[in-house]
Amino acid sequence: MKNYKQIFQGTAFTSKSPKEIEILKNHLFCINTDGIIKNIVAPHDAEYQTILDAYQGKPNFHSLEEGQYFLPGFVDLHVHAPQWAQSGTALDIPLYDWLHTYTFPLESKFSDLDFAKEVYDDVVSTLLANGTTTALYFATVHKEASILLAEICASKGQRGLVGKVVMDDPEGNPEIYRDANTETALADTEEFIIAVQELAKTTKQGVYPVVTPRFIPSCTDEGLKGLGELAAKYDTYVQSHCSESDWAHGYVQDRFNKNDAFALNDFGLLRDKSVMAHCNFLDNDDVELFAETGTAIAHCPVSNAYFANSVIPVKEFHSKGVEIGLGSDISGGFSPSLFDNIRQAVISSRMLEDGVNPSIPAENRGVPDSRITVNEAFYLATAGGGESLSLPIGRIEENYVWDVQVIDTKLPTARLPIFNENEDLHDVFQKMMYLVRPEHIREVWVQGEKVHTR
Amino acid sequence: MKNYKQIFQGTAFTSKSPKEIEILKNHLFCINTDGIIKNIVAPHDAEYQTILDAYQGKPNFHSLEEGQYFLPGFVDLHVHAPQWAQSGTALDIPLYDWLHTYTFPLESKFSDLDFAKEVYDDVVSTLLANGTTTALYFATVHKEASILLAEICASKGQRGLVGKVVMDDPEGNPEIYRDANTETALADTEEFIIAVQELAKTTKQGVYPVVTPRFIPSCTDEGLKGLGELAAKYDTYVQSHCSESDWAHGYVQDRFNKNDAFALNDFGLLRDKSVMAHCNFLDNDDVELFAETGTAIAHCPVSNAYFANSVIPVKEFHSKGVEIGLGSDISGGFSPSLFDNIRQAVISSRMLEDGVNPSIPAENRGVPDSRITVNEAFYLATAGGGESLSLPIGRIEENYVWDVQVIDTKLPTARLPIFNENEDLHDVFQKMMYLVRPEHIREVWVQGEKVHTR
Ligand SMILES: [Zn+2]
Ligand SMILES: [Zn+2]
Repeated sequence: MKNYKQIFQGTAFTSKSPKEIEILKNHLFCINTDGIIKNIVAPHDAEYQTILDAYQGKPNFHSLEEGQYFLPGFVDLHVHAPQWAQSGTALDIPLYDWLHTYTFPLESKFSDLDFAKEVYDDVVSTLLANGTTTALYFATVHKEASILLAEICASKGQRGLVGKVVMDDPEGNPEIYRDANTETALADTEEFIIAVQELAKTTKQGVYPVVTPRFIPSCTDEGLKGLGELAAKYDTYVQSHCSESDWAHGYVQDRFNKNDAFALNDFGLLRDKSVMAHCNFLDNDDVELFAETGTAIAHCPVSNAYFANSVIPVKEFHSKGVEIGLGSDISGGFSPSLFDNIRQAVISSRMLEDGVNPSIPAENRGVPDSRITVNEAFYLATAGGGESLSLPIGRIEENYVWDVQVIDTKLPTARLPIFNENEDLHDVFQKMMYLVRPEHIREVWVQGEKVHTR
Repeated sequence: MKNYKQIFQGTAFTSKSPKEIEILKNHLFCINTDGIIKNIVAPHDAEYQTILDAYQGKPNFHSLEEGQYFLPGFVDLHVHAPQWAQSGTALDIPLYDWLHTYTFPLESKFSDLDFAKEVYDDVVSTLLANGTTTALYFATVHKEASILLAEICASKGQRGLVGKVVMDDPEGNPEIYRDANTETALADTEEFIIAVQELAKTTKQGVYPVVTPRFIPSCTDEGLKGLGELAAKYDTYVQSHCSESDWAHGYVQDRFNKNDAFALNDFGLLRDKSVMAHCNFLDNDDVELFAETGTAIAHCPVSNAYFANSVIPVKEFHSKGVEIGLGSDISGGFSPSLFDNIRQAVISSRMLEDGVNPSIPAENRGVPDSRITVNEAFYLATAGGGESLSLPIGRIEENYVWDVQVIDTKLPTARLPIFNENEDLHDVFQKMMYLVRPEHIREVWVQGEKVHTR
């Protein structure tokens, strides 16, 4: 028997495939010093008793209580960290107004590092408390504050992928909030990349710089080209927004006479390490280009209800081989919880399938075969996010990292409605997906380290 | 100065109109022994200091801490209490299958009073913990268990309106779960009404019997007719489901050659004290009939995403003078929280307005002018529910009852993202609407009595 850093005992749920859940009932999970799951042992395995005999009762042996379960930590593919300060407000206006009246003025305040620290500390802690173990962040245009966000992720134990936002076009951005010019934008991005790659050397769970043009309307051609070159030079992640709303989609068509996807690709911004938010209006060619380049979609169902003018046909795009994960899109989406986004992903997909207008006959109302199940939405929030980032995360499986949340279904203040001691575990899983609130998340672990407890 | 049973000091939010919130900043709320708000005093009123001098420091003087706010308790117009036991499960199948495969077998178990007590205790406590101070319940066909639910509401301090469900048609219901025959169904309903009216005499916050034909497909003509007569004889509330899905709406058209609304009205079931769930497929004449008869709609946005095949044009129906409140529709809706339903009501209305199918041009995609704001959704969950029931509830206003929830925005485990000490109270309100979870609800009061604390 090998020597393990930690052993966990309990029942875990993980995705076997996009549509199927695997239930690992009362298994042992053996973690090495790097925080990797090196061995998963079922009760009927010969090793089970041997490991129990060796570890049970020791401080590094963790056994779940009855009613507690392991889930993989969530991977949030789209968070605007500074916007946490306005989460839940100003959701009654269109995207363009929302950006210019509320969001850009707020983000401009992150030149103040004290304010940045207060908000970034809180958003990283809040996401961890909501079970999000990996997050792909937009920071702001400010280099220093963006590095600070990466440092906060590193020190709080969250796997953070962080982008200094580029908005270098004086035409597309307000004077109070943009890069001074294209040259500065690119130089700051390069310094940011180097600083975060340096920080990564001492960060167990990983921290990654992300090349981050806000979206095409914010950037000059020269800026976009330079960012594509930086992404190639440093082999970084890339993130942006793509074909989100009628307005944004139409803007790019007007400017380039092509869709976002092809425009971004021309600048070298669609790569295997690229994650594009929203993508509601991709056409067939765009989808093919995403699949070919390995570009992933960050599906943000809560946000889309407010700003995307439509529901993305996520099932169709997924079936065409595009990698898809979930994003909270704080604060276009109000909720820091991917549980909320799992629920809305299912709901939105059903609305796309059934249609919404009751005065249209049923047969013409919706788009048949669009709905996803809660299993698939869970997949998007976990394994799909991991695949989108090409990291060994989002599954409870050997050689994946130990990123988990411990859910307590028997919390005295809010027990889940499980009245049968022998309730089918598939039903328990569904009740967790629909009814878990932050208070049920008792522990969160990232890369084998406990990073949240309550 | 009058003598008051209790004084509360703090900032409260309540609906001034369906679209406007009134903010009562640091007011005094003076409650009499019946639990009625007899006086609301602003800081600039002459009385303010007099009342403070008389009550401050006494045990019946309650002052909120910084970051805490009063909201009216929620009015949930549609809850299937027994279905709490399956909340969150089996949401991937159509209404008919969901009823026959899952729901009817579950409800049939409520002949067992021990099981009924376990589930009903838990659902009433859970709704109170979610800020629901008044609930309109479907129980099951069982008379005794339905009386038990009313007793549990009475003893836990919730304002419960409870219906023994009638399903008397052997054609429409499974043998394992229905009334023995029409005569029994009506006799049990009458005994149930008398028992609950008796219980009401000793229940401070009120408890009310509700005539409850499950829906037309479950009932014989004779049963429906008898129930209409009982409602008139005892002047009770009436509840049922109306034009929920394509299937249910079509069933009634086939059987009566008219829509649900007119069919129900023919049996005397549309009254000022009637609340009909869902109502997605009402046509113009149906809407007019609702307005004329004073029949209210229980809008259940979470549930509708799963079972109603459409989004109800709630803004249109509201503008035509129909009273509308919100319902959780446990367990067609998975969430016991009207906060969740407020959020989904806004989201669904936006999806109706914008449409969902991105391959349709924007100008043809949705139904213009359908969206509601979060203020309006809050109105539905509070004042709209009170008007639907014609009870003085759902507002923090003189001569309304003291049904409130105390929200703590500064909870250490989950503080809301308020980083500015002087944040505009309208923004605070919106953050509460979108980000409050059960743990933020620190106290719940019904009719001047504290019924939940944490
Ligand atoms: Zn975004
Ligand atoms: Zn119902």
